[in-house]
Formats: sequence, structure tokens, C-alpha cells
Amino acid sequence: MLNKFLRYACWFISPVLFGSAPLWASVPGESAYIFNSLLFLIGGFLVMWMAAGFCMLEVGLVRTKNAADICLKNILLYSVACCMYFLIGYNLMYDGVDAGFIGSFSIWGADDINVLAEGAVIEGGYAASSDFFFQMVFVATTASIVSGTVAERIKLVPFLIFTVVLSGFIYPIQGGWKWGSGWLDTMGFADFAGSTLVHSVGGWAALTGAIILGPRYGRYTADGAIRFMPGSNLPLATLGTFILWFGWFGFNGASQLALGSAADAVAISNVFVNTNMAAAAGAISAAMVTKFRFGKVDLTMTLNGALAGLVSITAGPDTPSIAAAIGIGAVGAALAVLAVPLLDRLKIDDVVGAISVHLVAGIWGTLAVPLTNGDASLGVQIVGILAIGGFVTIASTLVWLMLKVTVGIRLSEEDERKGSDLAELGLEAYPEFGSGGSILP
Amino acid sequence: MLNKFLRYACWFISPVLFGSAPLWASVPGESAYIFNSLLFLIGGFLVMWMAAGFCMLEVGLVRTKNAADICLKNILLYSVACCMYFLIGYNLMYDGVDAGFIGSFSIWGADDINVLAEGAVIEGGYAASSDFFFQMVFVATTASIVSGTVAERIKLVPFLIFTVVLSGFIYPIQGGWKWGSGWLDTMGFADFAGSTLVHSVGGWAALTGAIILGPRYGRYTADGAIRFMPGSNLPLATLGTFILWFGWFGFNGASQLALGSAADAVAISNVFVNTNMAAAAGAISAAMVTKFRFGKVDLTMTLNGALAGLVSITAGPDTPSIAAAIGIGAVGAALAVLAVPLLDRLKIDDVVGAISVHLVAGIWGTLAVPLTNGDASLGVQIVGILAIGGFVTIASTLVWLMLKVTVGIRLSEEDERKGSDLAELGLEAYPEFGSGGSILP
Amino acid sequence: MLNKFLRYACWFISPVLFGSAPLWASVPGESAYIFNSLLFLIGGFLVMWMAAGFCMLEVGLVRTKNAADICLKNILLYSVACCMYFLIGYNLMYDGVDAGFIGSFSIWGADDINVLAEGAVIEGGYAASSDFFFQMVFVATTASIVSGTVAERIKLVPFLIFTVVLSGFIYPIQGGWKWGSGWLDTMGFADFAGSTLVHSVGGWAALTGAIILGPRYGRYTADGAIRFMPGSNLPLATLGTFILWFGWFGFNGASQLALGSAADAVAISNVFVNTNMAAAAGAISAAMVTKFRFGKVDLTMTLNGALAGLVSITAGPDTPSIAAAIGIGAVGAALAVLAVPLLDRLKIDDVVGAISVHLVAGIWGTLAVPLTNGDASLGVQIVGILAIGGFVTIASTLVWLMLKVTVGIRLSEEDERKGSDLAELGLEAYPEFGSGGSILP
Repeated sequence: MLNKFLRYACWFISPVLFGSAPLWASVPGESAYIFNSLLFLIGGFLVMWMAAGFCMLEVGLVRTKNAADICLKNILLYSVACCMYFLIGYNLMYDGVDAGFIGSFSIWGADDINVLAEGAVIEGGYAASSDFFFQMVFVATTASIVSGTVAERIKLVPFLIFTVVLSGFIYPIQGGWKWGSGWLDTMGFADFAGSTLVHSVGGWAALTGAIILGPRYGRYTADGAIRFMPGSNLPLATLGTFILWFGWFGFNGASQLALGSAADAVAISNVFVNTNMAAAAGAISAAMVTKFRFGKVDLTMTLNGALAGLVSITAGPDTPSIAAAIGIGAVGAALAVLAVPLLDRLKIDDVVGAISVHLVAGIWGTLAVPLTNGDASLGVQIVGILAIGGFVTIASTLVWLMLKVTVGIRLSEEDERKGSDLAELGLEAYPEFGSGGSILP
Repeated sequence: MLNKFLRYACWFISPVLFGSAPLWASVPGESAYIFNSLLFLIGGFLVMWMAAGFCMLEVGLVRTKNAADICLKNILLYSVACCMYFLIGYNLMYDGVDAGFIGSFSIWGADDINVLAEGAVIEGGYAASSDFFFQMVFVATTASIVSGTVAERIKLVPFLIFTVVLSGFIYPIQGGWKWGSGWLDTMGFADFAGSTLVHSVGGWAALTGAIILGPRYGRYTADGAIRFMPGSNLPLATLGTFILWFGWFGFNGASQLALGSAADAVAISNVFVNTNMAAAAGAISAAMVTKFRFGKVDLTMTLNGALAGLVSITAGPDTPSIAAAIGIGAVGAALAVLAVPLLDRLKIDDVVGAISVHLVAGIWGTLAVPLTNGDASLGVQIVGILAIGGFVTIASTLVWLMLKVTVGIRLSEEDERKGSDLAELGLEAYPEFGSGGSILP
Repeated sequence: MLNKFLRYACWFISPVLFGSAPLWASVPGESAYIFNSLLFLIGGFLVMWMAAGFCMLEVGLVRTKNAADICLKNILLYSVACCMYFLIGYNLMYDGVDAGFIGSFSIWGADDINVLAEGAVIEGGYAASSDFFFQMVFVATTASIVSGTVAERIKLVPFLIFTVVLSGFIYPIQGGWKWGSGWLDTMGFADFAGSTLVHSVGGWAALTGAIILGPRYGRYTADGAIRFMPGSNLPLATLGTFILWFGWFGFNGASQLALGSAADAVAISNVFVNTNMAAAAGAISAAMVTKFRFGKVDLTMTLNGALAGLVSITAGPDTPSIAAAIGIGAVGAALAVLAVPLLDRLKIDDVVGAISVHLVAGIWGTLAVPLTNGDASLGVQIVGILAIGGFVTIASTLVWLMLKVTVGIRLSEEDERKGSDLAELGLEAYPEFGSGGSILP
């Protein structure tokens, strides 16, 4: 009792003596170091797990003849992204950006963060390699977004080469503009966990890829009709959505970047709640929009609605009230659902709807930050969206085009009909499940 | 060495000076605050993940023609439950129950917990929103239990309306009786993580739904035979069980509600061990019962046995020895397995066995608490089971009946034969996997 | 500001006064206790989740007619392993090994760790039951490795009896040699998280089982050809690989066994990074080896390559630089891929490739430790590999042979053709998915 009284008393008194944080009833420096590192590790393994979520979502939404190929792409793109980010990307993004446009270029440079991690104990307040791990899995997320859009027709090798460039150069350069303390950060651009820096970037890269690749054969018929090509395994697509939702707690929560104080714990808890509510509101919103617009509730759209809600809240999950988070998620999901027929009218063939989810909702989420965050300005948010959008679009277009004229990016029509599993891997994803064909046209 | 000696010395001496907990070698107040909040967040994301577990379990146990529909129901019920609990439920359960029967009614009231979270740093010892997050995902668990039982024949919209009432009103009101410090808590009712408050509640709601809906067409033939309708994707059902087992560490472990002291760490660790052993014993027990009773080891029953073991230990995972936890899980699983033919004899059609798992084992687990917990009394446990069972049964019956006479709750016979996927969503879950039909009668 | 200065000042000064760790700016004893326990709990639930990974990997790689059976085996083996380890194994491994060969034998002995956990607060620096939980899920991993290799032809009951002996006796006895401070530990054998103690052990047990069981009917034809029997659900095999990768952060990270200091946080973070990079390099390496050796990138081999990378780094994830971790993982994956045709030439039928992944890469990883860890010696590593390999091979062979001559271990040819699902369980895993048969020969 006395003990409890003393502890509370110290809590009140010590800020008077020492400034904002009391020294001895507060978190000791080494404990804060552990908390901060632990946050990166927990957040990191949750975000790593999102790679499985993208894989399941995509494998559920492609046709069986491309299912093994999309699995292979997903595990390899994650692997390639991690290696490239280590080799080149990390230093480009974080080493000496200094309010500028690009960090340092050095191969293997990031290895120091491991070797020297112990020496950095005091300076950073967290294990350097825990931060590196967390940043690394973010890159993989960006790369994962692309694979779904360009599925069912892109060749494996050029896809992986694109991933090399995206994760080694494109993502880290623009990432440094904000998170590496580059020029956008100096301007005050707000993007808490990456509605723009991660999701829109993946979306722009996917969009350019989809346009340059062209639609799947038979998707848009000569008479202007759109042929629906249903996903082959909706339970796996649902599982993928749940995995992504689950992993997003790490994605947004650990983007607080610190757990060493009570204020951090509060902020992260608020982020968890708002992340969850935006996703829930997104799912409900998408279900209602499809019900009233198309007559039936659509499962795939509902899944994408939850994801669009998550993307929308990602730019600023720390400042909204719960009610505001619900609104942000609901609007983002509605926009994403409505963008799907729009893309189809433009004959942009997005197999899993990733452009609608990650680009459209990503832009919306970034624009919505000033609604609840007084430190953000709409003008700067627009500058950030345009600058990053412009850079990624131009860079991605160049890479896709170079790949197109050199190694070629698209399967032959025959291979596309046969399916990329047989054409590229020489096997089937489900060799014993008779292909009964869809009952839908 | 000296340092180590000093630290241990302080450990021993300081309780003498300060009372039970030493002030400066112990956990500082702010560190405890972070630990407590972190426990809620980790526990919360694990319980959120259980929503995916229920979804996979159920989609694996329904027939393919209802697989997409059950996925849609699962993601929407989670979303609806979160929103309703925020809007109304949280305050009903926690705000001013005061040894009584119901908390305060106020729409959006729970938003304060987010906005004001920072101000509550000292009082509560944890971030208010971390606790809210943890409580919110519990509601979703309750709602998830219902969907499996009433699958394959209930319409989407009335199911969601039932979820609205369950998560906004029925669950929170009875939840407040114990966890909101209501009358049952005053009496000394013991339910650590919700064998009764969560699992039985879902079970009673499912039972009333199954009775009012009636069995699936063809399930019980005129001559008294029972037609077995095998699950379509047992690997996914197995995955779902593993997800639930995994998530249950958060469900039971974080129900300790604090990680700010060594005693909490010990308690949570014991809870983890007992939770795991009860599940293991449940799986083995169910496998043996099916082997000796039906001649073959049954996979679905074994999965349900693991879950029944988990439900059984949930009321009191903190007090049993490991051997006792094994016993509690094994008995619970045996009871759940034996309840399945009993329900069939009563022509209560439970598609996934959720009534046996969550209601039967939930009651057993609640009754078993006094065996290892001296603070619990069998009489009070029975009062709690009856009071909550009575309330939920009556309230659920009213809601189901009102839905039946207004919007209707059941698919037409034609739609049921066609499957809810085509009837309600206009699509198929596995459009390319030829429906070869079961070889079983 | 002053506060920050004081905190840093104390950090620098206090080591001078107290030795290596400053007393009051450092982690208080009770906080360290919580951190240490929390590490075991988080690591433990991640490793438990690996059981689901093995299950999904294996169910994806067997044919549909054996899919339900492998699910049943996986959930039961986990359950049996936990119970046996509690009943007998834990004490054999940890109680009084004292530089010797075996701990104490006592049934139920481990229950003390629960009952007495509270009393052990000061001594151990962590909750005894948190450590027990972590050690228990490791045993289950060992048992999981065996089931994949011997799938599609072994009977359920003898498989489970083998699991009883493996998890109750074989694993704990050899585990005590190193982790129970037995003779190998005294010699200086280095195996951070169990490339040898866990993975090779599972591999040796699987190898002896595969030899004694013999290959599946039709696998090796009379004219020396090898009939490829493709996995039935590659998306689930991919999911299983992702689950294992995810869980491995707990497997390797929590094997640091402490999180109570900044140095621990750094070490664990380094382990996370190296674990991830070895897996990524393994996947890429296997993809490239299959591309250049067999002409096409193989999905199953790529999945196994990631796993082989993980197994390879497990013996020493704490000391390599990131670049070295990449090398260790890449070599391990290449060796595992190249071992597959070798085993086939010896007519050793390994359904999922577990011997290549866990035994071959496990040996490589153990041998690679001295490359980056100055405290390890190649000679001692070889002694450890041979001693454990010899012991497990002899013990497993005896058990398999005893089972063969008593209850019999192999399905009849008719049952094997029909599939273990129908033969042993009387059901089908996917009753509605027409078995169209593979298009591959």
C-alpha cells in the first residue's frame, strides 16, 4: 500500500524534477532498448507472415492452371526482395539521405548493421538489426502487391528481374524521401506505415505492368464484353485475407518504431484498434456496396474491401478516433470496389484487384491523414502522392519496357492457354482435382 | 559478480522495507504499464487470428456448395461483431455494472477509450485501448461459434442481424455479470477466460439456432436413419484447428490481464502449458474414444477433441497441475465426442459439432474449476452456468424467432439443394474442382 | 534534456562502479524475469505453430488418398509428443545429466515445474513453465519431421508408438547430451537451436523408417525407372513452408534463451536477420539449381530449399554476418536438392524430401558453425554429429524393427492402393473433388 503510494507519488513528482519523463520510476534505458527491439521483431515476423497472406490470396484468385506458378513467384519474390534490400536497398534508403533524394550506394553495406549492432546499443535505443529486419519485410510487401495484378500471363524470369529492381532501387529511393529523412520528410509529408510509400508504390508498379503486359487472352472480347475469370479456390483467398489482416497489426503497430514508454504503448494500442476497425468497416462497406450496386454480396470484393480498409488507415492509424477510423476504412473500401469496373472499362486487367486495393485506397488514405492529424497538410500530402507516383510510374515503365524488348515479359498465347504451371514449371498445382470448369460463362 | 550479489540482495531485502514488491529492483511503473499493454496486444492479435481458424474449420467441414458462403459469413461476422461491440457492447459490459446486471447504454461511448487513453496512463496500469482491443476480439469468437452450427441452410442477412444482437447486446450483458464486476463476480463465479462467458454463450446461441432452423434437408430420413454429410476439405479443417489451438495461447494466456510482475509471468506460463496439454489430451482422448466406440479413429472428431480440450481448460487454466489439465482436457473431449450422436438422436443438426465442443465442454470446464481452485465453489459455478445459459437461451430464441417471422431465416429447399454459394452469392468456391460426390452414402 | 543526459551518463558511469552491467539504469531483476519468460512464450507459440506448417507441407505433398490420414498423424503426433515429454522426456533431458549421458527417470516428474514455478522466481531468471513450454514444442518438431518421409504407407498405430518412443526417450536422451549440460556440451559441441539435436534427429529417424518400411508400391519400377508421384495440393505445401519459415523466428530467436539485457536483444535480432536471409538464399539457390540441373524451376524443390536454408542456419544463427548466413543457407539448399536424386538412386522413398532437408542440411549446418564461430571446433562438431547420428540410428532401427515384427508397420498392398484415408479412417479428405489423376506419367 505504502509501496503503491510511493510509486504513484514518484510518478507525479519526478517529472517536476527531471522534465517530462521521471528517471527512476520510468523505463530504464536498457529496458526501453529491449522493448523497442522486441517491437521490431514482433512487428517484423507479423509482416513477414503477410507474404503468406499475399500468396494465399493470389493463389485463391487465379485459375488452377496458374496456381503453382503464383506460389513459386510469391516465395521467390520475398526471397529476392530480402536479398536485394540487404545488398543495396537499405543503404540507398537510410544511409545519408539527409533531406535529399537518395542515400549511399554500396554493395553489402548493410552487413555492418549486423556486425556492429552491439556497438550501437546506446545510440539508437534499439538493436540495429531488429530495425533492419522490420524494414526488410516491408520491401517484400511492396513486391508482393505486384505479383497478383500481373498473374496468369507474365513469365517467371522477367517478373523476378523486375522484383530485383523494385526492391533494390525503386522502393528504397522513394522510401528514403520520407522514412530516410529525405526531402518529403523535411516538407512534412505524413505516411505513418506506408499507404503511399508501400501500398501505392506496389500499386503503381502493378498498374504499369498490367498496361504494358496487356490483358489475359479472352478477358475482353471484341464486342466489348468482359469475361469473368473466377478464382479457383476462394477459401484460400479468404485465408490470405485473414493472414494479411493479422499481419497488419505488425505492419501498422510496429511502425510506431518504439515501445520504450507508456506513450508508445498507448499509441500502438490505438493503432491496433484503428487498424482493426478500418478493416472491419472496409469489409462491411464493400459487402454493402456490392449488394446495392450488383444485387449480390460478393465474397472477393468483401475480402478486398477489408484489405482496402487496411490500406486506407495505414497512412495515419495513430490519430483518428475509432469512429473516424471506421469512416476512413469504409470510404476506402467503397472507392476500391468502385474502381474495379473502371479499370475493366479501361481494359486494364488486374487479376486480383490489387490496383484498386493498394493504389486507390492508398491514395485515399494518404489524403485522409489531414482530416485527423493537425500536423499534416493536404497540399504536402498531394505533393508526396504525385512525386512518388510519378517516380515509380516512370521507373517501373522503363524497367517493364526494357524487359519487354530484351527477354520478353509475356507467355506465348499457347502457354497462357495451357497455364503457366505446365508451361513454366512442368507440373500441376492440383493434379488430382478434375478441372470441371466454371459454371459461369 | 558483486553486481549480481547486490541485485539479489536487494530482491530479498526490499520487500522487508517496502511491503510485498520491492520498489527499485522490481518492475518500474512505466515498464509494467508497457508489459501489461503488450500482453493485451499480443493476446489480442492471437485471438483475432482465431477468426481465421473458425473460418477454415467451418469451410473444411461444409460441402463445397456452401464453402464461399461460410467464408463470407466468417469475415463479415468478425467485422460486425467488432463494430457492434465498439458502438454499444463495450459500455454495456464494462461501464458501471457495479455488482449489478447491466452497464451503461451509449452509442459511440467506447470512443473515449481511444481519445482519452493517454490520460489514463497512471490509473489503469495499461493502455485502455489495448484492453479494448483484447475484449473486442473475444466478442468475435463468440459470434464465430454460431456460424458453424447453422451453416448450409441459414440465409446471410438474418445471420448477420443475429450477430448484431449477439455481439452488441447478449454477449456484453452476460459478460458484464462476471468480467464487468457484476453480480456473478460478486458471488465468486470463476471463469478465467470464458468457458462459460464465451464458449457456452456461443454454444447456447448455436443450439437455439439449430433447433429453430431445423436440420438440413435429407439429414435425418423418414425411417430414422442419419445421413452423413462429409466435410469437403479436411486439410483446411485441420488447419483451422491448428489456428485455433495457436490462437488459444492468446485467449487464455492474456486473460491473466497483466504481465507487469514476475508472478504474472509465472501465471501466464502455467496457463500456456496447461492450455497446450489440455488440447493434446483432448485430441488423444477423442481419437481413442472414436477408435473404441466406432472402430476407426475419426479425423473430424479428433480435431473437435483438441478444441473441446481447449474449451474445457479455459475456465481455469491457471490453477491445475499439468496432470490435472490433461485430465480436464481428456474428459471434456470424451464428453464432446459422446454428445455428437446424442444431438443427432434429438435431430439437432450441428454441421461442425460446435454445440458439443463449445457448450458441452464449456459446461464441463466450468464445473471442473473447483477441483483445482480452492476459491471456486461448485454451487456458484452451477448458478453461473444456469443463469447465463438461461439468459442466452431465452434472448437468442427471441431473436431467432423474430427473425423467422419477419425476414425469414432459412434458404428455400431449392436454394439449399443448389447450395448457398450459388443461391446467395452467385458464384462457386471451387469452380474448377469437379464435384465427384462422396463415395460414402 | 537534463534527464536524457543523466540517463546516458549513468549508462557510462555505472559499469565502472558495478562491473559489466549498471545496476539501476539497467534492466531490473524482475523486468528481466518477465522479458525472459515472454521470450519463451512467444518463441514457444511460434514453434507450436510449426506443427501446422509440417501438416500443411505434408498434406500438400501426399496424394489425395492419404491426405486425411497425414492430417490425423500430424495432430496426434504433436499431442503425443507433448504428453510423452511431460511424462518422461523432460526429466531425462534436463534433470541431473551433469556432463553425463542421461538424466533422471521419473513419471510425472515434470509436474513440479508447474506447481513449484512460483518458488523458482529468483533462481532461474525466468518462469520454469515458460522454459518447459518452449522445450516441449521442440520435441514435437522432431516428431513432425518423421511423418512426412514415411507417409502414404505406414500404419497409424505403429507410427504413433514410434512417436511415443522418439519423444519420450530418444530425443530427450540425446538432447540432454548438449542442452541438458551433458558430455557433448562439456566437450564444446555447438548447436544453437538444433540443426543436429532436432533436425538431424528427425532426419535419422525418418531415414531408418524409410529403409525399413521400403518404398511405396510402384515408386521404383523393375526396369530401374522412378515413377514421380506428384503432390496433390501445392498451394497448401507452399502455405506450410511459409508457416515453418514464420515459426522459425521463434525456433531460432528464442533459443537465445534470454531477453533480459540489451545484448540479448541484439543477439536475437541478429538471429532473426540471419534466419530470414538463410531461408531466402535457400529458396533462390534451390530454384537456380533446379533450373540449371533439370531445366525448369521446381516449386517443391524451392520450398524445400527455403526449409534447407533454415535448417542450415539453425546450428549457429548468432555468429555469421548476413553475407555468411546467405552463403550457409544457399549451400545447404543446394546440398538438399542434390541429395534428392541420390536417395532415389538408393531406392529410399522419402515422400516429402524431409531426409534431404533436415538430415543433409542439418549436418551441413552443424559443420558450418566453426566457419563463423571461433568457440566451435570442426572436430567436436563431427563428434557430435556422429554420436547423435549413431545413437538415433541404432535406437530408431531397433524400435522400427520391433514394431515390424510385432504389430506390423506397413499397410497391405491393397490398402496402400486404396489409400490410407479409406483404409484406416474410412473417409476421404476431399470427397467432392473428382480425382482426375495426374497428367504426368
